[in-house]
Amino acid sequence: MSFLKRDHNCGELNINNTNEIVTLNGWVNIKRDLGSLVFIDLRDRYGITQLVIECEINPELANFALDIKSEYVIAAKGKVRKRENPNQNIPTGLIEVVVSELQIINKSELPPFDISGENEASEELRLKYRYLDLRRQKIMSKMLVRNEVYKITHDFYYDNKFVEIETPVLMKSTPEGARDFLVPSRLNKGRFYALPQSPQIFKQILMISNYDRYMQIVKCFRDEDLRSDRQPEFTQIDIEMSFIDQDDIITLNEEFVKTLWKKILNYEVTTPFLRLPYKEAMSRYGSDKPDTRFDMELVSIKESVSNSEFVVFKEVIEKKGDIIALNAKGCAKYSRKQLDDLTEFAKKYGAKGLAWMKIQDGELKSPIAKFLNESEIENIKKATNLEEGDLVLISSDSWTKACTIQGALRLKIANDEGIIESVKDKFNFLWVVDFPLFEKDDESGKVYSMHHPFTAPHPDDIDMLDKDYYNARALAHDMVINGHEVGGGSIRIHSSEVQSKMFNLLGLSDEEAKDKFAFLLDALKFGAPPHGGIAFGLDRLVMLLSGTENIRDVIAFPKTTSGLSLMDGSPGSVDNTQLAELGLKLV
Amino acid sequence: MSFLKRDHNCGELNINNTNEIVTLNGWVNIKRDLGSLVFIDLRDRYGITQLVIECEINPELANFALDIKSEYVIAAKGKVRKRENPNQNIPTGLIEVVVSELQIINKSELPPFDISGENEASEELRLKYRYLDLRRQKIMSKMLVRNEVYKITHDFYYDNKFVEIETPVLMKSTPEGARDFLVPSRLNKGRFYALPQSPQIFKQILMISNYDRYMQIVKCFRDEDLRSDRQPEFTQIDIEMSFIDQDDIITLNEEFVKTLWKKILNYEVTTPFLRLPYKEAMSRYGSDKPDTRFDMELVSIKESVSNSEFVVFKEVIEKKGDIIALNAKGCAKYSRKQLDDLTEFAKKYGAKGLAWMKIQDGELKSPIAKFLNESEIENIKKATNLEEGDLVLISSDSWTKACTIQGALRLKIANDEGIIESVKDKFNFLWVVDFPLFEKDDESGKVYSMHHPFTAPHPDDIDMLDKDYYNARALAHDMVINGHEVGGGSIRIHSSEVQSKMFNLLGLSDEEAKDKFAFLLDALKFGAPPHGGIAFGLDRLVMLLSGTENIRDVIAFPKTTSGLSLMDGSPGSVDNTQLAELGLKLV
Repeated sequence: MSFLKRDHNCGELNINNTNEIVTLNGWVNIKRDLGSLVFIDLRDRYGITQLVIECEINPELANFALDIKSEYVIAAKGKVRKRENPNQNIPTGLIEVVVSELQIINKSELPPFDISGENEASEELRLKYRYLDLRRQKIMSKMLVRNEVYKITHDFYYDNKFVEIETPVLMKSTPEGARDFLVPSRLNKGRFYALPQSPQIFKQILMISNYDRYMQIVKCFRDEDLRSDRQPEFTQIDIEMSFIDQDDIITLNEEFVKTLWKKILNYEVTTPFLRLPYKEAMSRYGSDKPDTRFDMELVSIKESVSNSEFVVFKEVIEKKGDIIALNAKGCAKYSRKQLDDLTEFAKKYGAKGLAWMKIQDGELKSPIAKFLNESEIENIKKATNLEEGDLVLISSDSWTKACTIQGALRLKIANDEGIIESVKDKFNFLWVVDFPLFEKDDESGKVYSMHHPFTAPHPDDIDMLDKDYYNARALAHDMVINGHEVGGGSIRIHSSEVQSKMFNLLGLSDEEAKDKFAFLLDALKFGAPPHGGIAFGLDRLVMLLSGTENIRDVIAFPKTTSGLSLMDGSPGSVDNTQLAELGLKLV
Repeated sequence: MSFLKRDHNCGELNINNTNEIVTLNGWVNIKRDLGSLVFIDLRDRYGITQLVIECEINPELANFALDIKSEYVIAAKGKVRKRENPNQNIPTGLIEVVVSELQIINKSELPPFDISGENEASEELRLKYRYLDLRRQKIMSKMLVRNEVYKITHDFYYDNKFVEIETPVLMKSTPEGARDFLVPSRLNKGRFYALPQSPQIFKQILMISNYDRYMQIVKCFRDEDLRSDRQPEFTQIDIEMSFIDQDDIITLNEEFVKTLWKKILNYEVTTPFLRLPYKEAMSRYGSDKPDTRFDMELVSIKESVSNSEFVVFKEVIEKKGDIIALNAKGCAKYSRKQLDDLTEFAKKYGAKGLAWMKIQDGELKSPIAKFLNESEIENIKKATNLEEGDLVLISSDSWTKACTIQGALRLKIANDEGIIESVKDKFNFLWVVDFPLFEKDDESGKVYSMHHPFTAPHPDDIDMLDKDYYNARALAHDMVINGHEVGGGSIRIHSSEVQSKMFNLLGLSDEEAKDKFAFLLDALKFGAPPHGGIAFGLDRLVMLLSGTENIRDVIAFPKTTSGLSLMDGSPGSVDNTQLAELGLKLV
């Protein structure tokens, strides 16, 4: 089991070490046999160092090296010398180690895919052999960025007097929003813990407990049908503060993000960030997490056609809906097929159809032109700045839906037209504020919290809770970077009366509220301070900082979109004895 | 919702702030009404500041203050002045704030127990109202120590080039040792994730993946019958290193503990720690986690009675067992009842009975004296240093059991006799090394890993695996402080052949091993480096650093020994629809 132990790593030797005798350990990245010389690129976490075996001087060693293959773990001892052909691309590129002693510490079978190069195997294969995938520079560099994010985060909040406190992983199931993972209790058969979707209530409890400033980097869990950018377990930077207002939260956390970008990318973030009210974000960009790196803003053409006899417009105006248009500059060239595709795409967001209008070769074309009079068409052209070569897309629907559909089209077209590619090195930081407190499900008419039921109403709208509550704003804030929501939070309710009223508005009776949230309602009665906070999606921040759109690239051991771990084969089956001990059986 | 926001906290004002106008927020710790003056001790996380209301100068304010009760959240604005009666015990004790403006931010009901004082309510009541319990100085101070431990830990390992990597919480069930918590998968009905008992395999995988040095502060889970010092979820400082030997692990982690003790307690730990081989720890202290703050060592009296005709001794000598004695100095005074209690206590550790021998008033008394000859008694007296007033306890059994019984008695007597109390301010740091690789269940004869099946055999004992494997030593190391095992680790097996052999010795067929650990066995074939590590029990370290024997004092939201959270009522019941979605039903 003993081996020739390294005294240096593979990333640190340089010209100053010339003539030193060193020992290195690592993996064989590449071996090149030139007959009289054998070169081995030896790799570890810290870098690559070139080993050279001089076959004529040391034929025995040369012979021994014949057996060495890629990904073997070896030890090499030898003298550092200046390279004849330096490699300026790597820090150790000016030197090589002339090997005098060589040891195979462990062998390796032929890896199922290339580790040293740029060629990408299928993700399925890479996830099955994740231990090899993690060796690749592309993945390793992201893990190292993630490590820096942990460090900077801990330091930043520690320096700002935040206390790190662990909240429970085994907690009470709260059937709010997305689904809980359940954990059957063996000691209490028939009863279940739940894994936290977030430590929301616990961090509020900690404010009531006088901890003033709380932080935690914490795993959260959601048993949702997975989308490509979701994982059943994900990591949150969880923050809560007492005796503060929304500005305090916003200012401090802007500073945090500024620090991250500075330390990791040496990128200067300008603060304060833009604060976009929700209504403005929706009407200009059709999204509550707008990508503002490019313009291409939406425009309402309701005024342009306010007296139109066109039945579609007329109806939506009567219903107090809206007509939202988007000028896809230069897209008049789109084929019939492309327009059909856009319509299909819009339908995914609830559109019944998609109207359009374009000017090509001086001629205005639109399937709805025949329903509109000349001045209405002129108004639309003016409102949307429709010019030769442009394509205007139009949705008429409820304001929220029409904006959402056009917002989705905006992103799709920006993507298809290479606009997003052209701004990919830009970062755009902003807050969306003044969210509605509630949202209504159009079909069931049921009212939900837009964030969560602990979000404080805007102080100017507090009276609306008794009548016009659907229009009340929340003291909520989402941080958005390049169209990604990287963090969300709010000022919380610290009055037990307001909290009870909120539960009632959400359709929970006093008993139901008590059953589910008794301990929070109780806690609020014993001196709760004004408090609020934010939670950042750490995975998302690392994705932005390391330039990937694939969440699985920034998680060491991710799951597939079906929730499978291809490496260890989980979830797995368990035997009936084990289930019986939990008081359960499969149906 | 708006309030008079603080510009200072309650722990920072001092004589230099005299005459400044300040605003404070906090909780009313104590209010004292002296007629012409009302004093309020205002508390927040940072300290306590005395507010004073001058009733004659400001009768309106005095009147308003009548309503203020303990634990109300208030804001107070006023001028800082030097106190007439300074309190030297608190940093802010030289000043007070003469209030000019007062605001009740939130009220509090009468708390169910005293928060400001030293009086302790029942633990059950405190856990139900944990949000109030957490406000108490006694608990808060431990949470703040815990916060420092996180910080020092992250910094120490970061500075030593460790990479923090998150391993999965939802993983594969491995039916080894203690029990896994299971998590049913909704997307894959009938299949289950398990919560990690430790990230052992994942950290080894990360070494195979070239991460060189890994650390994580990580929640682990064990669904065991809880003992008073166990929790179903607990926190580990998890460490793994590549290209190292056992000395490297030991040296680095001694440095870590030294740093913790220095930074938190300003206590100088002497390194290197003593390293006690397992056999020595057992024979001298009867424990693999000996408390060496006091002597009271065990002694074998097998040689003293090697030719005895006494059937109990004779039999155990023939069976290659041992006869282990403990001199409880000054305990000859123990009553018959006390001796009976000791016997009952010994039986909990598997003793069939408990022999004793004492000298009281010059007379030797012992129930076994009549079976021994004079020279045997003399030998025992000499071996155990039995003197006037002493009580010697004797166990004859297998070596392990006899040592274990006497080791437990050693601790019990040290506790009963106030010896442990007398050394409570001492810290004693040591390693136990040279553990056996295996332990055998006396009844079933089944062989288990003493640590876990990935532990490397001692290089000197590697050949024993083929014959005398039960006596082979492991390259394992446990760190022990004051009789508590605070950390355990080992060098791991990095050869897939040795690992397969280990599984076979543990009674797993090749198929079973493959079924359970295929991915590890596979990973070992692709270039595994020599590696090893350690895991510290963070809760245990915080207990030692904050001077408590109660694990629930150092966890913000602990569970009872029945696994219940009295605050949120978890685990709770879930409805049948939810179970049906998981493909489960209660039996």
